[in-house]
Amino acid sequence: MSKELPQEWKRILDRLPQVIETSHGTGGKMTHELIETLFVPLFRNPTLATLQDQAVVDTPAAGRLALSTDSFVVQPFRFPGGNIGDLAVHGTVNDLLMGGATPLYLTVAFVLMEGMALKDLVEVTQSMANAAKKAKVQIVTGDTKVVEGRSEDGLFLTTTGLGVVPPWVDWRPECILPGDAVILSGTVGDHGASVMASRYEMEFETQIQSDTACLREVVMAVRDLQGIHCMRDPTRGGLATTLAELSAASGLCLKVRERDIPIREDVRGLCEVLGLDPLYVANEGKLVAVVAPEVADEVVRRMRQTAVGREARVIGEVDATLLGEACLVTELGAQRVLDLLAVEQLPRIC
Amino acid sequence: MSKELPQEWKRILDRLPQVIETSHGTGGKMTHELIETLFVPLFRNPTLATLQDQAVVDTPAAGRLALSTDSFVVQPFRFPGGNIGDLAVHGTVNDLLMGGATPLYLTVAFVLMEGMALKDLVEVTQSMANAAKKAKVQIVTGDTKVVEGRSEDGLFLTTTGLGVVPPWVDWRPECILPGDAVILSGTVGDHGASVMASRYEMEFETQIQSDTACLREVVMAVRDLQGIHCMRDPTRGGLATTLAELSAASGLCLKVRERDIPIREDVRGLCEVLGLDPLYVANEGKLVAVVAPEVADEVVRRMRQTAVGREARVIGEVDATLLGEACLVTELGAQRVLDLLAVEQLPRIC
Repeated sequence: MSKELPQEWKRILDRLPQVIETSHGTGGKMTHELIETLFVPLFRNPTLATLQDQAVVDTPAAGRLALSTDSFVVQPFRFPGGNIGDLAVHGTVNDLLMGGATPLYLTVAFVLMEGMALKDLVEVTQSMANAAKKAKVQIVTGDTKVVEGRSEDGLFLTTTGLGVVPPWVDWRPECILPGDAVILSGTVGDHGASVMASRYEMEFETQIQSDTACLREVVMAVRDLQGIHCMRDPTRGGLATTLAELSAASGLCLKVRERDIPIREDVRGLCEVLGLDPLYVANEGKLVAVVAPEVADEVVRRMRQTAVGREARVIGEVDATLLGEACLVTELGAQRVLDLLAVEQLPRIC
Repeated sequence: MSKELPQEWKRILDRLPQVIETSHGTGGKMTHELIETLFVPLFRNPTLATLQDQAVVDTPAAGRLALSTDSFVVQPFRFPGGNIGDLAVHGTVNDLLMGGATPLYLTVAFVLMEGMALKDLVEVTQSMANAAKKAKVQIVTGDTKVVEGRSEDGLFLTTTGLGVVPPWVDWRPECILPGDAVILSGTVGDHGASVMASRYEMEFETQIQSDTACLREVVMAVRDLQGIHCMRDPTRGGLATTLAELSAASGLCLKVRERDIPIREDVRGLCEVLGLDPLYVANEGKLVAVVAPEVADEVVRRMRQTAVGREARVIGEVDATLLGEACLVTELGAQRVLDLLAVEQLPRIC
């Protein structure tokens, strides 16, 4: 990481205490120094730089507003493929995108643990700044609090996003119709498996990378098409929980084929070792799209032209055989109802 | 508290586990049950009820958008006069109001401690719902996470607010002019003193109440007046830190008179016992307004007609004697520079 901006990191590390203290969270001099030395330079944008308690931005010319919020408490906060910082940007930006919104602005609230190493906070902040830049959103306002007594947690982040939904876009589970195609943008289980592997310091032949990524490019590649009915990113609870939620909300049956759902070999192996079902393991850079059948091939074709959607494929269809329940057609041809995640498999995965 | 909605509380408590478990935070069945049984009924509004990962709302007709976010980690989470729930609503709504915005929507992210009593969560949620109703904002989307290992903390909340700033309003420190009047809406130090007293279970003759309150009414009473240059609510760091911030940002000197700053006798007493300066103790329902001298009397008159502004008064003026520094004229006539809060007095006060 230090290769990216060594000069800027050095400047920050030289000017601030090397560990987070409670005084960093009391709104006084040390809070100001943290904001002005670390957050403003790395998140750099004119709105944040005003340092007001609120950010004032222009109202988009047309469309409805989309708002989304998520807290991130992942442990450990750093894992192969990312850390809590890019996760917090991607998670909220992706939730806006799933509603068809163009993400515009983010807010971020830090709850820092007393004793956290400053260099870890700089690393997380840098990751957020990089992710925000790539996602084309500005981090326009924020907050910093410090709590004592659990320095091993590092930090919790809460991001809230504001976006604008174009007038022609209306993606909701209620728009799903019988006959629709169910499209998945790539492999499942990568994020959860990566965090589990790093939590238990498990050794595998290959290191499992989290799929944490911004879905902006893959959504924008298809947003102008007619016939997209609903999108959702299968994060906590995994693909199965998302399919169950969409089935319940639409009153239809999202029926998918096990053999068409891509799972990396190392993810499958780890899940077998831990006794987990990869369909219930979290993803952080994948989406499910439910689209009219006549547009399915074009959606897949366009998604495959993007970096995060290059393994996109149709994994099933919507029918009315089971009202409000999702269904998996197994490799052997049996049908299995997919319910919401019932017993917790992986706490603090995001 | 249980008098307010006993039937609804009973219904909630009957249907859910009596303590928070990690499965409430994993996005599966128990998270859904918590949202559908507790949050949706108490926060009731059609946008939240769609249960999407993002809330889509209409764009305001005119004006710029204001965004604000704050995390709340106050300990204990319940104190005389309020709890973390109304504090989290008031805190973010007030930050929007200080920018001249009409608050419209809130998001809320819960980080719950495993083992938290459900009835405490219901109480906090009810307080949020009541505060939101009174502040005329809708809680349109949210998130729930659970972390293990510090059940004594109860919960952390992060609220983010969206509001609209009318075209004619532009309140910023940069708009402050020499000769402006500095107005304070009421007594200082109440919130911080209340939390400290309940943290140490200190016995005083009177119980010190937090001033946690929504500033909507007092702001709306004056917002149509010309000549309001800046407002800010003196929360963490207290009145002195706010005056120092506004002086630094305006490049002028906000000079206030100690004898004109109202402090409750019990708050003053507690601060003496603890060795705290009440000017640096947090408030959660007060504001500082910097206004043109010709409109000061009318601002005070209107503020005094509201419940939270009934002790409003002019406490000083803006001059150019000390560039960028705030100044207190003491009871004895000496002048003392007011700096930002330097050493932490009261951690986890909000």
